[in-house]
Amino acid sequence: MSTQTSDGMNYAPRGKAAPVVRPGEFVFAAMYLDHGHIYGQCNGLIEAGGTLAKVYDPQPERVARFVQTYPQAVAVSDPREILEDPAIRLVAAAAVPSERGPLGCQVMRHGKDYFTDKCPFTTLDQLAEARRAVAETGRKYAVYFSERLHVESAVVAGDLVEAGRIGRVVQVLGLGPHRHGASGSRPAWFYERAKYGGILTDIGSHQLEQFLYFTGNTSARVQAAKVANYRFPQFPEFDDFGDVTVIGGNGATGYHRVDWLNPDGLSTWGDGRLFLLGTEGYIEVRKYVDVAQEKVGDTLILVDKAGEHRMACAGTAGFPFFGRLIRDCLDRSETAMTQAHAFLAAELCLTAQVQAVRVAG
Amino acid sequence: MSTQTSDGMNYAPRGKAAPVVRPGEFVFAAMYLDHGHIYGQCNGLIEAGGTLAKVYDPQPERVARFVQTYPQAVAVSDPREILEDPAIRLVAAAAVPSERGPLGCQVMRHGKDYFTDKCPFTTLDQLAEARRAVAETGRKYAVYFSERLHVESAVVAGDLVEAGRIGRVVQVLGLGPHRHGASGSRPAWFYERAKYGGILTDIGSHQLEQFLYFTGNTSARVQAAKVANYRFPQFPEFDDFGDVTVIGGNGATGYHRVDWLNPDGLSTWGDGRLFLLGTEGYIEVRKYVDVAQEKVGDTLILVDKAGEHRMACAGTAGFPFFGRLIRDCLDRSETAMTQAHAFLAAELCLTAQVQAVRVAG
Repeated sequence: MSTQTSDGMNYAPRGKAAPVVRPGEFVFAAMYLDHGHIYGQCNGLIEAGGTLAKVYDPQPERVARFVQTYPQAVAVSDPREILEDPAIRLVAAAAVPSERGPLGCQVMRHGKDYFTDKCPFTTLDQLAEARRAVAETGRKYAVYFSERLHVESAVVAGDLVEAGRIGRVVQVLGLGPHRHGASGSRPAWFYERAKYGGILTDIGSHQLEQFLYFTGNTSARVQAAKVANYRFPQFPEFDDFGDVTVIGGNGATGYHRVDWLNPDGLSTWGDGRLFLLGTEGYIEVRKYVDVAQEKVGDTLILVDKAGEHRMACAGTAGFPFFGRLIRDCLDRSETAMTQAHAFLAAELCLTAQVQAVRVAG
Repeated sequence: MSTQTSDGMNYAPRGKAAPVVRPGEFVFAAMYLDHGHIYGQCNGLIEAGGTLAKVYDPQPERVARFVQTYPQAVAVSDPREILEDPAIRLVAAAAVPSERGPLGCQVMRHGKDYFTDKCPFTTLDQLAEARRAVAETGRKYAVYFSERLHVESAVVAGDLVEAGRIGRVVQVLGLGPHRHGASGSRPAWFYERAKYGGILTDIGSHQLEQFLYFTGNTSARVQAAKVANYRFPQFPEFDDFGDVTVIGGNGATGYHRVDWLNPDGLSTWGDGRLFLLGTEGYIEVRKYVDVAQEKVGDTLILVDKAGEHRMACAGTAGFPFFGRLIRDCLDRSETAMTQAHAFLAAELCLTAQVQAVRVAG
């Protein structure tokens, strides 16, 4: 599995190995491989020193492909062989979105931490249940918000903000365009509202997490949201466009736009951008491509009092989230991401989806 | 007066001369030089063949500077020498924003067309009065929406959209950051709400016009808006941030953000951007600078089915608005911009300002 850029569903970044534990010290398993993000999740944990022990999925062909990539993973035929294995500390999963919440509660109630692909939930009820399960079990419900956690230029942006390079961040603007891909390339659940939850719930979840992270907000409200289906009338439950604007408790605001309208001529799966507007400067991140300029992404532009600065971030910052997550699981700390932050990001995107005005397509 | 890029207030583009009339065939005057945009307005009209005959402003030093740039303009000491001169067909003006509406009605009631700097109004009442005056007099109330009309890359974007290069435009996203400039460089009215009208009314007006133009909408509503003052607490009536999201009658939507937070290190007065999202591709316009790449602006990026295309637009398209406006005044046509369009753009920005949530600074 190498880093692929034609299709976001199979975008599984690889970084430098930076183990935080010895082999065998942090054992995890993978379950439910519905979304290709599971490869990115596993890559991140393995590079941070995690030991991938087992894999379960009801579809044998998916398991066969998985163990080809990760021969160390023992394929098991019953999920209980993972859930009831005391050696396994964490379960990484990328189930159909509507199953992620219930699966996570099941995992936590088996005494394990959970690391799900985004979106973490498709309904506010699932979120409420997960909050209860976390409170009851003391386990972690961690989320793979890959569009920040697995993008080095976004990691660098976080470091620059933390260092005060653009002053106070007053607005985050995120663009998350995605390639739909060839007709027939997506599974049926991709178009079923009850299963994927709507575009703001799904790919919008990355965005709201970034808003909270870069502005340092611990509370926020949705001011307005909308969704539309402009190009896929054959899938009436599908949204191919969504946007949301939010107001944070600390006075910083956000605007986030997502879509499935990416043109075929783009050299990557999506021209993802992030703009951080600060009182002393601004940052633009061109995550996956510097469009019509460089066929590589991870370009960060910083404009401050001194000038305009361009930084090539690939290979610089790595992906510190995964090692921190492993340490947090072992140390019961919250250095990677607090549970409250992950759940609030989820709450905002679910609320945005519920409140969204449906615009005529 | 050459094109300046340090300060938007004195940004007065020059283009290729493309006269649509013979000398003396279209005579105009300039009145009220409060905003430096009057130079851009006059440049555009003169390049299109207009004959600048007279100038009036109550401040002699402003008149002196003006006639240095335009020696052909006769300075008059009483506005009636312009208003009552039957040879003058159009009055170009850049008064204090709150005076623009009343001045325009006065000009039209003297039988002349009016060409004001944006923002065209500061209150909805002024707009209503101008609509009445247009209906009564049959004169034109034209607006210098310079951030589209006087930017060649934006002109090219319009041509590409019209040619169907990105399919149906479903979203317009505009960023209009502006440099405040050195402390003390702005006139007092710049900070007085009753005079400048608020940030969405003022620099937001460019944005709403672009939304209507690029989506081809003739109706729209404000979904949400907000304003804030993050960096200028010494000017409590000032907004240094504003945004608005709109829903067009044809189902296309817009998001527009403006601010006065431009960092000193930027090589121009504002990193203005325009993103047009279409069903078959998208366009990004980097109006005044290709930040951290090229010190020139007017870069247009088109991504379509075939690939990623970068176009340097400076010196290509010219500024057809001005010649069309002159022809419209002579022919009583509406090829440059319809009156309904200009007034709807004004209505949207005024409504956004009224509806805006004030975020804690």
